[in-house]
Amino acid sequence: MHTVFYVSDGTAITAEVFGHAVLSQFPLAFEQVTIPFVETLEKARLVRQRIDECFAQTGIKPLLFHTIVDPVLREEVLRAQVNAHDFLNTFVTPLEQELGVKATPRLHRTHGMENRKLYDDRIDAVNFALANDDGITTKEYEEADIILIGVSRCGKTPTSLYLALQFGIRAANYPFIDQDMSALDLPPALKANRHKLFGLTIAPQRLHEIRNQRRANSRYSSLEQCEQELARVERLFRQEAIHFLNTTSHSVEEISAKILETTGLRRQLY
Amino acid sequence: MHTVFYVSDGTAITAEVFGHAVLSQFPLAFEQVTIPFVETLEKARLVRQRIDECFAQTGIKPLLFHTIVDPVLREEVLRAQVNAHDFLNTFVTPLEQELGVKATPRLHRTHGMENRKLYDDRIDAVNFALANDDGITTKEYEEADIILIGVSRCGKTPTSLYLALQFGIRAANYPFIDQDMSALDLPPALKANRHKLFGLTIAPQRLHEIRNQRRANSRYSSLEQCEQELARVERLFRQEAIHFLNTTSHSVEEISAKILETTGLRRQLY
Repeated sequence: MHTVFYVSDGTAITAEVFGHAVLSQFPLAFEQVTIPFVETLEKARLVRQRIDECFAQTGIKPLLFHTIVDPVLREEVLRAQVNAHDFLNTFVTPLEQELGVKATPRLHRTHGMENRKLYDDRIDAVNFALANDDGITTKEYEEADIILIGVSRCGKTPTSLYLALQFGIRAANYPFIDQDMSALDLPPALKANRHKLFGLTIAPQRLHEIRNQRRANSRYSSLEQCEQELARVERLFRQEAIHFLNTTSHSVEEISAKILETTGLRRQLY
Repeated sequence: MHTVFYVSDGTAITAEVFGHAVLSQFPLAFEQVTIPFVETLEKARLVRQRIDECFAQTGIKPLLFHTIVDPVLREEVLRAQVNAHDFLNTFVTPLEQELGVKATPRLHRTHGMENRKLYDDRIDAVNFALANDDGITTKEYEEADIILIGVSRCGKTPTSLYLALQFGIRAANYPFIDQDMSALDLPPALKANRHKLFGLTIAPQRLHEIRNQRRANSRYSSLEQCEQELARVERLFRQEAIHFLNTTSHSVEEISAKILETTGLRRQLY
């Protein structure tokens, strides 16, 4: 099995996320090793040794995906016997031409705290999602960017948290319970913010499986109950002309990206 | 101002995250436009038009960072007047040589649901973080991968959620309150899981600011109270030989990467 090293003088999250995306194009399994915060020559030497030991042990030349800003540290790591790919500089050189500006490489430029205000807004969004999870309160909907609605366990909470952490979006979520749905009407707090509403739905069988893990063999988790709730809530979405999305075969990333595309909500990148 | 387009036939999150990292090396501001799910020729044509209109309006050739798998759709988008950077294929071609295997490009290979089990584990980790937030319960610590401990508002909750969403790690967190700290002893539930403990601390002034936003001019938020709590909890960390980290100038990404580095906890990549 090939070993791939993700190495950075920062968190190495960019190298990881991007390296993982590139490697997922290959029909192979990889042993993945992440080494963040390579900020000293001593640590760079240890990385080089570790890569060389891996080569000696496996007989297969390892892969290295790196985002090391300091050229001295980078050179040291690149002395290893390795197939190296420089994620940043590969694009920085042509971009310098296109932009007519020299790059000014800086450490911790992403995933850091360079802009305290932006960072605080993001953490505020996480706190907002928690404080407004699962209809705990409906009093802060004025401050919400979006309000996700749907039956219990259709994916509202993980999506709210992802929108907050990844994009700094203030997402509340509200669960429909029997009472709301039998009237087939929106509760007042939702009506007052209907331009912020976005519906989530899910296949009855999948909802049944998810709920069964929580409360096995209950009325709540029965396929019949799931079918009824979903039929009602989808009728409500249609009646009220609320955009909605079926989450059954979508990840939180996909759900979030579709919500942003549909609503045109402005995202923040960190 | 330069406009940059992030375009993909998937979520475009890879293009966004990586493009943002590359561009942050330049001392410029960018207008950023993300266009996900370009899955049809019609949509590819609209993207091309939108890029060309941007060029016509601004007179500045836009940048395009893309991860479009389908060659027909890619060609269509690339007919635009644009400085294009192909994030995936730039590395795929040399990797095919190094790995001795042809790439098998597939849609939604990352940020999708190809592996339902992995995805469900990740959502379970998010639910675990929520159910074990802020010491709500201490009964599930057997199932935790890590237990973050520290005073109120030092960064435990966002870090727990990030570890869950990004890496599928089951992170509980427990807040120290006066009572725990005056005894300078670990509560029994923590003692029984001391190999899982990781401490967070923060500068008193910063904690004072954060708490003041919650409860202005309270004893809880006073600088004196913050100083006392932090001094006690740090003494406890030292006394019990618990690894700890000062979060004052670190983002959740940095805190999480440092925790993983220190503990050697295995991460999952999605």
